[in-house]
Amino acid sequence: MTITGKNLIAGQWTGETTNGFTAFDAQSHQAMSTTFADATEIEVNTAINRANEAFASYSQLIPEKRAQFLRTIGDQINALGDELIETACAETGLPAMRIQGERGRTVNQLGLFANLLESGEYQAVIDLADNDRQPLPKPDTRLGYLPLGVVGVFAASNFPLAFSTAGGDTASALAAGCPVVMKAHAAHPATAELVAQAILAAIEICDIDKGVFSLIQGKKYTVASQIVTHPKVKAIGFTGSERVGMILQAQMNQRPEPIPFYGELGSINPQYVMPEKLAQDTQAIAQGLVGSLVMGQGQFCTSPGLWVVIGSEKGKESNSNYQTFIDAATQSLGEQTAGVMLTPAMCKSYNDAVAARKAVAGVELLAMGLSGREQDCSAALFATDFATYENTPELHEELFGFSALIVRCDDFDQMMKLTELLTGNLTASIHALDADLDLSATLAQTLAHKVGRLIYNQMPTGVEVCASMNHGGPFPASTALRTTSVGSEAIKRFQRPICYQNMPQALLPKALQT
Amino acid sequence: MTITGKNLIAGQWTGETTNGFTAFDAQSHQAMSTTFADATEIEVNTAINRANEAFASYSQLIPEKRAQFLRTIGDQINALGDELIETACAETGLPAMRIQGERGRTVNQLGLFANLLESGEYQAVIDLADNDRQPLPKPDTRLGYLPLGVVGVFAASNFPLAFSTAGGDTASALAAGCPVVMKAHAAHPATAELVAQAILAAIEICDIDKGVFSLIQGKKYTVASQIVTHPKVKAIGFTGSERVGMILQAQMNQRPEPIPFYGELGSINPQYVMPEKLAQDTQAIAQGLVGSLVMGQGQFCTSPGLWVVIGSEKGKESNSNYQTFIDAATQSLGEQTAGVMLTPAMCKSYNDAVAARKAVAGVELLAMGLSGREQDCSAALFATDFATYENTPELHEELFGFSALIVRCDDFDQMMKLTELLTGNLTASIHALDADLDLSATLAQTLAHKVGRLIYNQMPTGVEVCASMNHGGPFPASTALRTTSVGSEAIKRFQRPICYQNMPQALLPKALQT
Repeated sequence: MTITGKNLIAGQWTGETTNGFTAFDAQSHQAMSTTFADATEIEVNTAINRANEAFASYSQLIPEKRAQFLRTIGDQINALGDELIETACAETGLPAMRIQGERGRTVNQLGLFANLLESGEYQAVIDLADNDRQPLPKPDTRLGYLPLGVVGVFAASNFPLAFSTAGGDTASALAAGCPVVMKAHAAHPATAELVAQAILAAIEICDIDKGVFSLIQGKKYTVASQIVTHPKVKAIGFTGSERVGMILQAQMNQRPEPIPFYGELGSINPQYVMPEKLAQDTQAIAQGLVGSLVMGQGQFCTSPGLWVVIGSEKGKESNSNYQTFIDAATQSLGEQTAGVMLTPAMCKSYNDAVAARKAVAGVELLAMGLSGREQDCSAALFATDFATYENTPELHEELFGFSALIVRCDDFDQMMKLTELLTGNLTASIHALDADLDLSATLAQTLAHKVGRLIYNQMPTGVEVCASMNHGGPFPASTALRTTSVGSEAIKRFQRPICYQNMPQALLPKALQT
Repeated sequence: MTITGKNLIAGQWTGETTNGFTAFDAQSHQAMSTTFADATEIEVNTAINRANEAFASYSQLIPEKRAQFLRTIGDQINALGDELIETACAETGLPAMRIQGERGRTVNQLGLFANLLESGEYQAVIDLADNDRQPLPKPDTRLGYLPLGVVGVFAASNFPLAFSTAGGDTASALAAGCPVVMKAHAAHPATAELVAQAILAAIEICDIDKGVFSLIQGKKYTVASQIVTHPKVKAIGFTGSERVGMILQAQMNQRPEPIPFYGELGSINPQYVMPEKLAQDTQAIAQGLVGSLVMGQGQFCTSPGLWVVIGSEKGKESNSNYQTFIDAATQSLGEQTAGVMLTPAMCKSYNDAVAARKAVAGVELLAMGLSGREQDCSAALFATDFATYENTPELHEELFGFSALIVRCDDFDQMMKLTELLTGNLTASIHALDADLDLSATLAQTLAHKVGRLIYNQMPTGVEVCASMNHGGPFPASTALRTTSVGSEAIKRFQRPICYQNMPQALLPKALQT
């Protein structure tokens, strides 16, 4: 496929690439050769207006037809073959195997929603009329669901496929019956264009209004602002930093009509090592946590950034389990190879954040991973005590990348106090043995209110795509804690209930007819 | 019962009533004798902090225990007997039969949620582990629901029982496991206190932490502001005007942590009279609409404020059906008795709004209802044409009370154009015969996206409380269009999903154990 560098506006490739932007090769930090067009205000406006026009027909498609469209997108993504893998690898620095896995997940997600549409799983609630009821007859009422309208989606830097152009937000919005205006991430624009080509091919094969999908390229904030404040946009999906997410939220707050904002903004994913686990599985849990941390250079939203352990101060006798754990983690982390970050900018941010954390009073740098080339980053493991953590707000913030902070608590009370201090997280894990059950139960009761997913004796990295998944949680994990961005429930973000009262069969959606 | 005029702060009646405010007798417009304490900042803070403390135990109560609490509240409300009816009638001017009906609905709502809790209807989604799955084992994941935390509820002026102290928001929040801090409406503080006494009695009977419910009295905006911006408040339920709702929304937008705002802000509930219906049932539909309009002086959120009819200009031959309809509506409206509004302030607002509408160019006052005493208001019926409606934004706004605007469209195209102009509504009705089916189908497709409930050949007033009800809709009908404030789904507003991964049975909520 030829990469045009242009925007896809309702089936048309448009825009001027001459003064456009370039992505960077994540390995070399060199600018890549293709230039991409910054979308203009007119292009964004056209994309949204055409999406709104397409909504009239697309929202009326029977579920089976939408399912066919989703599957065809998946087929067309697969048909991109190695070019997609190579392009994504170059733009993100992620290894081919990871991108292949992510492609599989992306296609599976489309299939999951197709299955859901075909199974008619979102069943209607039907309360028939009762004309004899006293004092008033009961009318016939039936609860159905309508798609919201045009959805604006912002691609994530760290999942160039599964949370980007045809990722979870796009798949669930299209499944719900909503057209999508996609803002590509400037770190992987060529990957975005390839996937957009696949979507366009699917649109043509399935004979769907081309307004149903547009791809907006651009590096300028004004494009994002235009999308989130446009009156015809009815919901926003976003995965990114808390800083950018809150800028978008503030802009959305200016809208006369409030719309849902599904923002996934950050998570430190605390890992609790309970006393018996610490005593019995010391080496294994230390190594397991390091292994989870360094996956993909820690650039997962579920990367374990905070480890909470009970131990006494250095040099005290009862300290041996804690010190053995620290030693094992230190040794394991020190052996981890350096790696590339998703972008040169993220590499710099990571190194700056690690340097800043080193300088925090009361925080000890336990180990750095192996160093690599100049443009590589190294893992970093820090430790502190509860009092320092409690009194140092910057330690509560996410440090994006493969760095973790171990917090030593004097006792279980401090572990609970730390839990109270937490803001929202996507996940937390309790690592425990049977002998820890009572403490784990007490902890779980409080910790559950801080997370979207509570895990026992497993690492937080890796998100299962299934009906019982919840990928969300209290702010800042999500700006809409009643929703999930992964799993079949994600479709509900883009639909809303409607009650039909006393309607003749002919005016009811098929799913509500009796 | 003695009315103390005080706030109920976690079981304590507190506050200084000497410089407090009074409610007005809706019939006489005279200030009533009891003075009520404006809650202080400290009282509000105590209420919220105690609610947050109570959350720890209340959120852990088994569903059956919460169900028992809800039913006991209902019993205690019934036990208030005639005093509640008389007090509410005096404060609101609503007739005893209406208040009795509303009490029944309030108690039934509590029972509906109790039934829901006992039936375990919100079933878990459980995906068992599959250790043999390739390339990675599938973990055990189970989807459950957690209550959000402290809920702030603002009582409605127009439903002193069913949308107030123990109304739908309170019932669904308590059912969900959330403590409630209730801001009473200053128009019916004594009614609020009586119901709060009933809730306190239920708390004592069921031995629940008294922090689970507080009643805040007050007329000052600062109290509302303090509730919606308090960091320990995790959701807001509000029923009131768009103006006040948007003030609260703007304050909530300043929160570091966004929380859900369930605001029901206004609705004009358009009524479409289709051509055959107009031709065949001319008198009946005109009288039916007038009857729905004047119920409770039009002070229902579902009052039919806009009637859309196809007719040609006055004096043209094909105009006869339309003119007959207008004549019938005019005659019927003119016979309607005057009545009291909920408060003197609302009486003045209504009269001012009617006077303002009279003065709009292109709008004709067809009829006023009978006049009454000085403090009574009269129904009012206006008519205009599509062009005037299209070009006059103030005609698109809700006029709260028993006034409707008939918009004459030249043809079905104009009827559809008008539909496109609508903002969100709680309801709309299509009044039609079989011969109107094709037009009705076309209309319904567009109209569905403007309403929370779409009705066929029934009036919008009267909201069924059942599982298939949706009382919400696009803004300004609701600030959260994916939710309903009436019916069993209302409980979901105060819960959020959580995924438990690989948890031992002992750490799972009972509903998720296998």
